[in-house]
Amino acid sequence: MTEGPQFDSDFRRQFRELLVWRRDVRRFQCTPLPHGLLDELLALACLAPSVGLSEPWRFVQVDSPAARNAVTAEFERANGVALADLSGDRASLYAKLKLAGLREAPVHLAVFTDRSTAKGHGLGRQTMPETLDYSVVAAIHTLWLAARTVGVGLGWVSILDPQRVAAILDAPEGWSLTAYLCLGYPEEEMDLPELERASWEKRAGLRERILPR
Amino acid sequence: MTEGPQFDSDFRRQFRELLVWRRDVRRFQCTPLPHGLLDELLALACLAPSVGLSEPWRFVQVDSPAARNAVTAEFERANGVALADLSGDRASLYAKLKLAGLREAPVHLAVFTDRSTAKGHGLGRQTMPETLDYSVVAAIHTLWLAARTVGVGLGWVSILDPQRVAAILDAPEGWSLTAYLCLGYPEEEMDLPELERASWEKRAGLRERILPR
Repeated sequence: MTEGPQFDSDFRRQFRELLVWRRDVRRFQCTPLPHGLLDELLALACLAPSVGLSEPWRFVQVDSPAARNAVTAEFERANGVALADLSGDRASLYAKLKLAGLREAPVHLAVFTDRSTAKGHGLGRQTMPETLDYSVVAAIHTLWLAARTVGVGLGWVSILDPQRVAAILDAPEGWSLTAYLCLGYPEEEMDLPELERASWEKRAGLRERILPR
Repeated sequence: MTEGPQFDSDFRRQFRELLVWRRDVRRFQCTPLPHGLLDELLALACLAPSVGLSEPWRFVQVDSPAARNAVTAEFERANGVALADLSGDRASLYAKLKLAGLREAPVHLAVFTDRSTAKGHGLGRQTMPETLDYSVVAAIHTLWLAARTVGVGLGWVSILDPQRVAAILDAPEGWSLTAYLCLGYPEEEMDLPELERASWEKRAGLRERILPR
């Protein structure tokens, strides 16, 4: 039997801290990331699991001001529509939330799923083709945690039309937008979600989440 | 500015080891998990990010032999269909793969997305409703890593019809199956994916995965 690494209680304590202090960051400093750091983080993200070893993640690094501005405008459009669907106190509360840091974040990263990939030879995705997208989510979540280990924050912007963003970025045929991410150093660090601090929603307990069968 | 925890290079080295040695496990020992361990791991999983703080993850712990057997039979049915779609060398290779450890694994855990949840008040999921499922994937990936820190392996079984499994488990209305997981102590530990060792597929480099825009 091959022996892998053992993780001790000190590592596990710190790993829990990492989970506790990982935030969906919307308030970034403009400071750029050190050269090469993003590639190091993406290399870790690529260690994520993927269905059939399909590795369907594709990263688009959005640096041009034209593309950044177009995506930011698309976020503002979609956010306006979302606000218009609300009324009363919820609308007032929603209007006060800061839901993206697109203007300040030094890094914009669009993450796509290549649904046309032949890699993996289709294994494991006949009855649940969505596992291809789920593999990309696992890579994003890996990136998120890896970023936090070096003090870099990540914010996931989902208030935008994925097809419009794919068009703005001239994404290859067959690529589907899974997430649009901002990365950069956060203005502050917090162990409570910003939506909880802003009284939008609060965390629930575990007990009510488990059903026996 | 609030100061969060700092992670040093030793933690980062071990975190990378965790990513490298996390496997999709299909070969389990029958040894049960210590009492309470699964709940501890699930509590960590619940620290995952979720769209609008919706926390849509729902866990069904499948202990009854009848339900375990019915899910195993469903896997065998779907796996037979997948094999019948292949031919030649691919079919021979596929037939030799062990793609699930449903009979041996002490823990079966079905993970659902509650698509009917009002929690989060719809924030962030108007244009990309799939982010609700993606939140559950982040919780599963958190569970996966947390399990590995205590030497517990996890295997994700996607070769089954999600609606048939939901019916077998009599899942509440509005719950959609995101993943069916096996957990237990692995027979062996490996830093290479089993599909790579079995010559089904190999890992690709990062360079070809990044597009500039």
